[in-house]
Amino acid sequence: METFELAVDALRARQCIKWTRYDADVLPAWVADMDFAVAEPVQRAIARVVDEQDYGYPDRAGADCLDEAFAARMRDRFGWEVSAERVVPVADLVQAVVASILAFSDRGDGVVVQTPIYPPFLGCVDDTGRATVLNPLVDDGARWAVDVDGLRQAGDARTRVLLLCNPHNPSGRVLDRDELLGIGRVAVERDLVIVSDEIHCDLVYPGARHVPVGSLDPEIAARTITLNSATKGFNIAGLRCGVMHFGSDALLDRFRRAIPSRLLGAVSSIGLDATVAAWREAQPWLDAVLVRLLANRDRVAGWAAGSEGVHHHPPEATYLAWLDLGRLELPAATPSRFFLDEARVALGDGADFGLGGGRCVRLNFATSPEILEAILGRMTAALQDARERSPRA
Amino acid sequence: METFELAVDALRARQCIKWTRYDADVLPAWVADMDFAVAEPVQRAIARVVDEQDYGYPDRAGADCLDEAFAARMRDRFGWEVSAERVVPVADLVQAVVASILAFSDRGDGVVVQTPIYPPFLGCVDDTGRATVLNPLVDDGARWAVDVDGLRQAGDARTRVLLLCNPHNPSGRVLDRDELLGIGRVAVERDLVIVSDEIHCDLVYPGARHVPVGSLDPEIAARTITLNSATKGFNIAGLRCGVMHFGSDALLDRFRRAIPSRLLGAVSSIGLDATVAAWREAQPWLDAVLVRLLANRDRVAGWAAGSEGVHHHPPEATYLAWLDLGRLELPAATPSRFFLDEARVALGDGADFGLGGGRCVRLNFATSPEILEAILGRMTAALQDARERSPRA
Repeated sequence: METFELAVDALRARQCIKWTRYDADVLPAWVADMDFAVAEPVQRAIARVVDEQDYGYPDRAGADCLDEAFAARMRDRFGWEVSAERVVPVADLVQAVVASILAFSDRGDGVVVQTPIYPPFLGCVDDTGRATVLNPLVDDGARWAVDVDGLRQAGDARTRVLLLCNPHNPSGRVLDRDELLGIGRVAVERDLVIVSDEIHCDLVYPGARHVPVGSLDPEIAARTITLNSATKGFNIAGLRCGVMHFGSDALLDRFRRAIPSRLLGAVSSIGLDATVAAWREAQPWLDAVLVRLLANRDRVAGWAAGSEGVHHHPPEATYLAWLDLGRLELPAATPSRFFLDEARVALGDGADFGLGGGRCVRLNFATSPEILEAILGRMTAALQDARERSPRA
Repeated sequence: METFELAVDALRARQCIKWTRYDADVLPAWVADMDFAVAEPVQRAIARVVDEQDYGYPDRAGADCLDEAFAARMRDRFGWEVSAERVVPVADLVQAVVASILAFSDRGDGVVVQTPIYPPFLGCVDDTGRATVLNPLVDDGARWAVDVDGLRQAGDARTRVLLLCNPHNPSGRVLDRDELLGIGRVAVERDLVIVSDEIHCDLVYPGARHVPVGSLDPEIAARTITLNSATKGFNIAGLRCGVMHFGSDALLDRFRRAIPSRLLGAVSSIGLDATVAAWREAQPWLDAVLVRLLANRDRVAGWAAGSEGVHHHPPEATYLAWLDLGRLELPAATPSRFFLDEARVALGDGADFGLGGGRCVRLNFATSPEILEAILGRMTAALQDARERSPRA
C-alpha cells in the first residue's frame, strides 16, 4: 500500500461527511473526496500556519499569491497564458457558478447544462430563477460526447449562459479540442457566456489531454469564465478555496458591476496557503496518486465489463465511474438504493445528476485497492443475489 | 508576562499583515489583530483537523454546529434567545454587510452609517451603488453618543438600511439599552432594516454591558440582522467564519429571495471548528485576556490624559483607542503619517473612518505591556520633538 492510502479506521475517525453519513457497516464511495493523505507540501503549509498561529489578517504577495500560483500552473501544465489580474478568489466553485449566472443573465433567462451533471449546477440554475436548458450528452457507443448540433438549437434567444464541466463530472469525459471549438463557436454565434468548471483538470489519464476552453481562440476566450481549484486534485475540499478566471477585461468589468467583490467573502489563510502549496509543489504526489487512480479505474472498468447488464465507459479523467444499470431490473426504487441496502455500499444516486441519471450510479474509486475490492465484491454479490431471486434482474 | 502574550520575534515571523506591512523598525498598532496566542481549545480544535487531515467535505451536527454554538453563546452571555434556524454562515462580516445592503435596498437608496466608522462599511455602501447617509456620533464631553434625533431626520424616504456597529469601532462605545431603544424606534417609524455588527461584543469592560439590538422588543428584532463572529474576540480573523442572524422568518425569507444561499460560499471546516471551540470552550482564556486589555486601556487613557492636546474617551469595549489630535498642529499631512514617520509607530489613519476622522488615529492596544510601553514612549518622544521644533504643535 502506498503511503498516501489511508486505512478504514483512520478514515472513520475523521469528521468528513464521506465516512460519517452512513452506518459503520457501509463502505462509502459517493461524495468526491479521496481516501488519501494529502501531499506533504500541502500538509507542511497548513502546519506552518497552525504552528505559528498565523491566524491574523493574511498578507500574501508574489509567489505566495493565489492568482500568480494559478497563472503559473496553467502555463506550466497546459501552456495557457492567463492574466493573474483577471483572477478572482472564491470559497468554492458553486459560489462561482451562482455569481456567474447572476452576473450574466436575468431572472427567467436560460442556462444550458449538459446532463448528466454535477448536481449543484442544476440547483444553481433553480436557485437563481433561471430556466434550465438541457443539452444532454450523447452516448456514441464508445464514450459520452457533447451534442454540438443540439447545443446550437437548445433554448431560445433568452439563453445566455452555458455551464460547461470539463473534464466532465460524472461521465469522466475530457472534451477534445474539436469538441471545444465546436462548443465555443456556438457560444460566439449565440452570444453565450461560457462558465467552464475545470476542477478535474488535474486528474486526467494517459491518452487524454485537458484543453482549457479559455485557451482556444481569443474570441471564445473573451466570453469564458474558467473555474478552478486545488480542492479536487489535491483533496482539500473542506478548506474552501478556488478561483474564477475571466477571459477578458470586459467580461471581468461586467462581472464586477453586477457582483461587488466583497459579496464573495474572503478566502481563509489556510485555504490560500494550502492551495498555493498544492499548485506549486505537490505535482510529484499527484503523479503517484494518478498511478493508483489509473489502476483503480481499470479495475472498475474490468468489473463493469464482467458484470452482466452494467454499461460503462471508463473515465478519461476524474476518480468517478458512471455506471448505467438500466438494463437490469433491480428490486429497489433506484440502483443507489439497491446497492446501499443490499451491498452496504454508498454510491452517488444518478437521479441527482438530472435527466436520464435515475438508472445510474456514480462510484468514487479514489481509495485503496483493498477498499475498492471490498466495494466491488459486495456489489457483485448483491447483483448475484438479485439475479438468483429474480431471473430477469 | 501572561502566556498568551507573544514576543516581537514570534510576531514578525508570521505572515499576517499587521507585522509584515511596515519596515522592521516600525511597531504596528493598526489592524485589529491581537498580539496574543489563541486559546488552547481553539488551537486544539484546529490541530485535530490538521492531525487527522480532516480536509474533506465537513459534516457537523448538533453541538458541533455553528448555528447552535452561536445560539448557546448568545443565551449564556447575553440572555438572548436566538433561533438557530435563522443563522446563516458567512466568510466575514463585510460579506454579510454587502449581502444585507443588496437584499434590503435598491441602487440609489440610502444607507445610514454612524461615523467615524469601520472603513469597510463606507466601502460597502459605495460598492453597491447606494447613497451614504451620515449620522455622525456626537461627543457629549464624556463619551461618543448616537444622535437619535439626527437619525430620525437623516436621509429621506429612500433611506432603507441602518448600519449599526455596537460595540462601536473605532470609538469603543457600548450603546446602552435606552440608546438602542431610541435607535430601534426610529427604525420602526422609518421602516429601516437594522444591520448590527456586534463582533466586538466579547470585548466589553466592567461598567458596560452589551445588549444585542435583536434582543430588544419583537418589533425591533423583526427588522434586525445581527452579525457576529469569534474572529475578533478570539483572534482568528484569517480563518474566515462568521454568522448572520435574522430576527424574523419574514426577514430571512426576504434575504433568501434576494441572495441565493450558495452565493455566499461555504465556510472552511477549520473556520467552523475553531469558531465552535471558541464560543463553547474559550471563555476562561478571554477572561484572562480582558484583564490584560483593561490594564492596557487604562494605560493608554492615562497616557492620553497626560499628553497635551490629545483628546480621548477610554473605550467601553474593543482594544482600540480613538485618539483625536486635532488640537495639535503636527508637521505632517495626517496624525497617522506623523506617528509613522516620527515615532515609527503604525496606527490606523482616522481619515479612513469617514467624516471628521482625519485628525484622529486608532491605536490597537492588544499587545504586551512591553510593546505598548514602547509604542507610547515613541509617540511621546515624537510629540515632544514636534513641540520643540514648533511651539504651536
